[in-house]
Amino acid sequence: MIFRQLFDSVSGTYTYLLASRRGGEALIIDPVIEKVQRYLQLVNELDLKLVKAVDTHLHADHITGLGALRDHTHCITVMGEMSKADVVSMRLSDGDKLTIEGVALEAIYTPGHTDDSYSFLMDDRVFTGDTLLIRGTGRTDFQNGDARAQYDSIFNRLLKLPDDTLVYPAHDYKGETVSTIGEEKAFNPRLQVKSIDDYVALMNNLNLPNPKMMDVAEKALARMGVPLGQIHSERFDLV
Amino acid sequence: MIFRQLFDSVSGTYTYLLASRRGGEALIIDPVIEKVQRYLQLVNELDLKLVKAVDTHLHADHITGLGALRDHTHCITVMGEMSKADVVSMRLSDGDKLTIEGVALEAIYTPGHTDDSYSFLMDDRVFTGDTLLIRGTGRTDFQNGDARAQYDSIFNRLLKLPDDTLVYPAHDYKGETVSTIGEEKAFNPRLQVKSIDDYVALMNNLNLPNPKMMDVAEKALARMGVPLGQIHSERFDLV
Repeated sequence: MIFRQLFDSVSGTYTYLLASRRGGEALIIDPVIEKVQRYLQLVNELDLKLVKAVDTHLHADHITGLGALRDHTHCITVMGEMSKADVVSMRLSDGDKLTIEGVALEAIYTPGHTDDSYSFLMDDRVFTGDTLLIRGTGRTDFQNGDARAQYDSIFNRLLKLPDDTLVYPAHDYKGETVSTIGEEKAFNPRLQVKSIDDYVALMNNLNLPNPKMMDVAEKALARMGVPLGQIHSERFDLV
Repeated sequence: MIFRQLFDSVSGTYTYLLASRRGGEALIIDPVIEKVQRYLQLVNELDLKLVKAVDTHLHADHITGLGALRDHTHCITVMGEMSKADVVSMRLSDGDKLTIEGVALEAIYTPGHTDDSYSFLMDDRVFTGDTLLIRGTGRTDFQNGDARAQYDSIFNRLLKLPDDTLVYPAHDYKGETVSTIGEEKAFNPRLQVKSIDDYVALMNNLNLPNPKMMDVAEKALARMGVPLGQIHSERFDLV
């Protein structure tokens, strides 16, 4: 099994490269556009063939690498069925299997941070996107976020997984790389609530500023057919 | 097995927390002073008892957390026998076993970055300190560094390990979390040399500035008995 957790320090994003063996098919989760050359280099060094690139949801803090990876490798681009991105070539529903040679992930629909948020379960680990972070949860105050839906996604889906399931989120800002379901259940400060109403009240009173990249990241994803140079220049005008 | 890779984004340092089970003994490698409260919290959350804290070498880019962890937990502080730090309570030589309940690491003397650099082998993985980094090697131009010794440590010790041995370094600045011996052998640009003399020439021509924290980190380590508040205030005067 090849499992690589890669970090984009600008946006605090974790990207995951998975394959069952050297020389085999690979899948990447939540790639960041600025790191695409590094992903391609690593795929090449490990003698892999990138066949699928997946976003757990529409990210508001960085431009996805899906379009660039598709342009370079002709991989299939994957998101949940709620995604508004026109050029996603495969759309998943809750319970769907996302497979490459030797690797199978189960899609779990976990709305709340956004309405297109999915988590992906693979054996002993779950990729939780921005739904469940290490000692945190993704904000729910934009992009059709919904604290009530997130409570349900977390408490009734993710926290029902075995306690020793490893949690690999899409972000971390404090230097954590992995956690477990049991730990988050016990020590995630946002999950120490008595009811769904308490959680909704907590999430609705965070008063966070909008992420700087939100508008441009949305625009870029919605137009992944646009040449990358153009997206880049628009980004740097706006940020 | 509990294995946690923790990142200090200020110094780009990786710290590793190891234990064989919840409720058991734990060992930490290369702790950073600013993160000590987080380590202690995690040790507590995972119901661990921290019994040993190890530095792979005297770090020039951050103040070690060894003294603070010892003060809080009474753990044994461990470094190689070359270490000049007075308050290290256990000193290792090449081939020594470093053990806690259910975990055994073999100390491999790998001088070059410093003359007190050790790597630690544990089953399928090796903690390489600053000797072997992911697609890089530690500089050899201060603290009794020696490019010739480092070549020997890397080529005649570390690269002799099985190709699929996981490489966990003390630092990364580009968002990598892990590599393998086989990958570094093939793709680490500093290791694509024809001879030891080529390597020495390469390392002696890097012309790097001194790390900002070098003086204060050395001073702090040499006096781990000094109250932390005092070290902190000295640090912030100097940096």
